[in-house]
Amino acid sequence: MEIALSRPGLISLAAGFTDNATLPVVETRALLTRLLSARRSAEPALQYGSTAGLPELRQRTAERIRGLDAAPSNDPRYSPDRVLIGHGSQQLLYLVTEILCNPGDIVLVEDPTYFVYLSILQSHGVRCRGIKLEHDGLDLANLQRVLTDLEQRGELPRVKLLYLLSYYQNPTGVTTSLAKKAGALALLRRFERAAGHRLYLLEDAAYREMRFAGDDVPSALTLPGARERVIHLGTYSKPFATGVRVGFGFLPPTLLGPATRVKGNHDFGTSSLLQHLLARALASSEYSDHLATLPRRYARKARGLVRAIRRHLPPSIEWQEPLGGMYIWARLPGIRTGLKSALFKRALEAGVLYVPGSLCYGADPNRPIPDDELRLSFGNASPADIEEGIRRLGEALR
Amino acid sequence: MEIALSRPGLISLAAGFTDNATLPVVETRALLTRLLSARRSAEPALQYGSTAGLPELRQRTAERIRGLDAAPSNDPRYSPDRVLIGHGSQQLLYLVTEILCNPGDIVLVEDPTYFVYLSILQSHGVRCRGIKLEHDGLDLANLQRVLTDLEQRGELPRVKLLYLLSYYQNPTGVTTSLAKKAGALALLRRFERAAGHRLYLLEDAAYREMRFAGDDVPSALTLPGARERVIHLGTYSKPFATGVRVGFGFLPPTLLGPATRVKGNHDFGTSSLLQHLLARALASSEYSDHLATLPRRYARKARGLVRAIRRHLPPSIEWQEPLGGMYIWARLPGIRTGLKSALFKRALEAGVLYVPGSLCYGADPNRPIPDDELRLSFGNASPADIEEGIRRLGEALR
Repeated sequence: MEIALSRPGLISLAAGFTDNATLPVVETRALLTRLLSARRSAEPALQYGSTAGLPELRQRTAERIRGLDAAPSNDPRYSPDRVLIGHGSQQLLYLVTEILCNPGDIVLVEDPTYFVYLSILQSHGVRCRGIKLEHDGLDLANLQRVLTDLEQRGELPRVKLLYLLSYYQNPTGVTTSLAKKAGALALLRRFERAAGHRLYLLEDAAYREMRFAGDDVPSALTLPGARERVIHLGTYSKPFATGVRVGFGFLPPTLLGPATRVKGNHDFGTSSLLQHLLARALASSEYSDHLATLPRRYARKARGLVRAIRRHLPPSIEWQEPLGGMYIWARLPGIRTGLKSALFKRALEAGVLYVPGSLCYGADPNRPIPDDELRLSFGNASPADIEEGIRRLGEALR
Repeated sequence: MEIALSRPGLISLAAGFTDNATLPVVETRALLTRLLSARRSAEPALQYGSTAGLPELRQRTAERIRGLDAAPSNDPRYSPDRVLIGHGSQQLLYLVTEILCNPGDIVLVEDPTYFVYLSILQSHGVRCRGIKLEHDGLDLANLQRVLTDLEQRGELPRVKLLYLLSYYQNPTGVTTSLAKKAGALALLRRFERAAGHRLYLLEDAAYREMRFAGDDVPSALTLPGARERVIHLGTYSKPFATGVRVGFGFLPPTLLGPATRVKGNHDFGTSSLLQHLLARALASSEYSDHLATLPRRYARKARGLVRAIRRHLPPSIEWQEPLGGMYIWARLPGIRTGLKSALFKRALEAGVLYVPGSLCYGADPNRPIPDDELRLSFGNASPADIEEGIRRLGEALR
């Protein structure tokens, strides 16, 4: 961001911002005007609420995710009592990591993964082990090898959770298949005895509703043993408005109390105004109507990025067509992409910014960090800027 | 809260909620309608911003606090660059404590102090030492004795900061005089060499704008050496609307970077919508006009509480007339007030809830925790409920 701000004219294909044109301005204004039109509905929105979150929002969140997962209406895994509302799902990532991990503990992460989560781990002194990623999610054989290795080293008791960004992953765009989620959870369960405690599956579904092609995949909450082991996080910020930071988590019973207490220490509860806004959006058709407008816009921008890559970048580049989210991950065999690389410098000179792939790998000393990858975002840039940005990147590459 | 929810008809003089009747419903609706009336102003409010906060809000915050402190316009202590915006000032309390304290470290707190801050300390494994409080703030002789004792025990290097709720303190209502702030900061500076590092003064001014009698006191930012040592926190939530959680901190240069990075891990920035709302309130007259309506209402409720205490409670009760904030702290010599006391139980049976004073003392093994005090709030209860609540408390006492 500092780089972007200091160079006007720079096209950023780096930022994880959503598309300004999709922001629900009219809908938000209408919802807030109605909410604030009578003191009776307005006062609770302008007053403190409970730390766990607005009951109506927890209820609607539970119903919504249960609906997406096509679970029966009495399924206890989708009870509103299990839902904790956060200031974005980011806060829930933080809370869960804070309550589960001590310094020196180990978290399993995808290779590559969401770099802000790596920063959370680092700030808590938590180590990580990277698990290889395939086109349909985690490499389960690699997961098993890493768990076995940790067991042999006597480090399994330090392992607390596997962090899985299961939908249109940031940074790769990869979606984890249900079979792979099931395989991962089964492996975690198999190693629990040796670990001496539960090994949690932390499923981050932040991009689930940013789908523009293909089918939705059921969440890890649908798996056997999920109630005690799966922490499922989602957000309304990304699909609705990133300036309205409201996320949610479904937490195992053992974690809900501690996470709520730490949330109380953080802020004693997410802004009531934001929660009431979202609850009203969900209660009316505003949220789903808005959601329905997203796929066309993002699909178009993704196609534009794909077209520009084919036109301007060398044929040796490796990448995967996105079905949702905001990112394309690309590999440029033999070309360094890091912050100190010639490519990064020349790209800046040409006026385009990308995220170096190496930033998305955890500090796992057991494998080298690739330095020939990059993340390109089609979230915020306009179609014209996407085309021009990739043209500039091609120029820098040449 | 659990108790209050489970007993309808209960009058809570415990909750720290503000007065519903003072919530700025019309103002908020007008501000948001204008903000969201054009895409140009609306889009930034619905999009991510920077982690440190909206530049305009940081600027207006800096100007506002500089104005309250009557400091010159070029005073570097009030530079907007020093301001970090949080999801309530509560989040800033958390961030500052998180970046400064390791498990086993020591924080100096007032006896009594804000109980949620004690919970933050506890959750980070931080110890505390209590400093006696007088009618005009910290007992400086006691502060000196505690610092000397810590030096003699070789524990001074573990001391990180003094937490001072300097305006209409929660729970006692006490305001610290400027002379006492200066004395406290001078003492901290004197012990810095023995500590081996800076000893920060964490000034929490959450209730500063909740004044209804007497004069404002300049903040600790006005003191010599403040730029490097004073962390000054304030909030817009309490005076404006507690459902709009926006607080701010002025941080020493050494702490600003680390706190901003951890804030990035928490939530990468407070909701833009809330920040734009507050920036507009400050830019228009809405904020100060609203502020001007508060004193009359709170002064009236405080007077009602005082009258009810005189009418219904025994003359042995000791308390101090409030000049701001939302609390009266009372001592009932010889009567236990704790959660397991006969009084607490009978008060519940009579239908009134208070905060036992013992909850507001840190776990400092060097002094006993008094068990004959209680906190009464006139923030949220109606004038009639305040009168009736105290009548019930008197009944319980008899």
